[in-house]
Amino acid sequence: MKLYDAPLSGNCYKIRLMLSLLGEKYEKITVNLAGGTRTDEFRKLNPRGQIPVLEDEELLLWDSQAILIYLARRYGGEQWLPTEAAAMAELMQWMAVAENELLYGLARARAVKLFKRPWNLAQCQEHGRAGLQVMNEHLAGRDWLCFQHPTAADIACYPYVALAPAGEIFLSDYPHVQTWMRQIQMLPGYINMEGITPVKS
Amino acid sequence: MKLYDAPLSGNCYKIRLMLSLLGEKYEKITVNLAGGTRTDEFRKLNPRGQIPVLEDEELLLWDSQAILIYLARRYGGEQWLPTEAAAMAELMQWMAVAENELLYGLARARAVKLFKRPWNLAQCQEHGRAGLQVMNEHLAGRDWLCFQHPTAADIACYPYVALAPAGEIFLSDYPHVQTWMRQIQMLPGYINMEGITPVKS
Repeated sequence: MKLYDAPLSGNCYKIRLMLSLLGEKYEKITVNLAGGTRTDEFRKLNPRGQIPVLEDEELLLWDSQAILIYLARRYGGEQWLPTEAAAMAELMQWMAVAENELLYGLARARAVKLFKRPWNLAQCQEHGRAGLQVMNEHLAGRDWLCFQHPTAADIACYPYVALAPAGEIFLSDYPHVQTWMRQIQMLPGYINMEGITPVKS
Repeated sequence: MKLYDAPLSGNCYKIRLMLSLLGEKYEKITVNLAGGTRTDEFRKLNPRGQIPVLEDEELLLWDSQAILIYLARRYGGEQWLPTEAAAMAELMQWMAVAENELLYGLARARAVKLFKRPWNLAQCQEHGRAGLQVMNEHLAGRDWLCFQHPTAADIACYPYVALAPAGEIFLSDYPHVQTWMRQIQMLPGYINMEGITPVKS
């Protein structure tokens, strides 16, 4: 497999982390975030002009959530992404939190601070905190978001939660989220990313 | 099944449309958008305080994309949502466009104009147009987003595309999107929503 990647992208880290947890080997192609995804050549790989992009033999996939779902189904199996309707939908609820409150809240707040993106910081922080609050209440007394074991949903949510402090959203208000982060950090095959501080036990 | 619904919500319409295309009966419970989702009682149904919510016997589900995936798997089957890894991921790419450019672009632009929400209209319109452009290029020479037949991805994308003019994003620049909209409007069981104009042939 080939992953078009950038070290500071939480969405790319999501894929690197999943590949590492599954023990899959791949080739990393680093794309320059300052323009490298906006070329005509890159848009042949991904018409949205974004990373990550994954190539697996003849298959070309864009979008971090779609790639995560592919890896979970193809290399992880039912334990990472069940196909029974009710179980799949339960997991997809948390994939949706990752794509809404966490991406448009936490990740955008980080991008305002780190990359000077033009979004409204207070609105992004409010949206992100709403997601953290829902996660924190759900994780009280639970180790994982669903099914009492790690799934694609945990890996989808983890990166931008763990990177939230860069958007000036502090995790000490969300103790159950912090405990869950530590569970992920202790998984065999866990890899870190620049900007994520390990949670102390 | 019971659907907690509001007539003007594109995310609720997504579920009403899917249920109608699948020929499934359900009870509709109309929730007042001005506060009805923010009560403690409603948050027992959905901790995010949003509609739609679906009850199917003992199962309680929130999030429109998760509910759509549930209905497609449980009542639609492989034709609406395949479970083979590559095919599922191909479909999930377009579910992601629905959750990103269409929801945070088109739907938010509509909400600024229609419900006086505080988002930056120009930013939302730009994000939404980027999604329409990607869809339009993809749909050149295709009737459906994937697999040459209608799937959950088409139903996920349709509502906020069809409602885009309410956010002052006009669809005449995206002729292949308009042709695709007409294919959806011609499906047996199609139902309309206030604000959506049928595409002329």
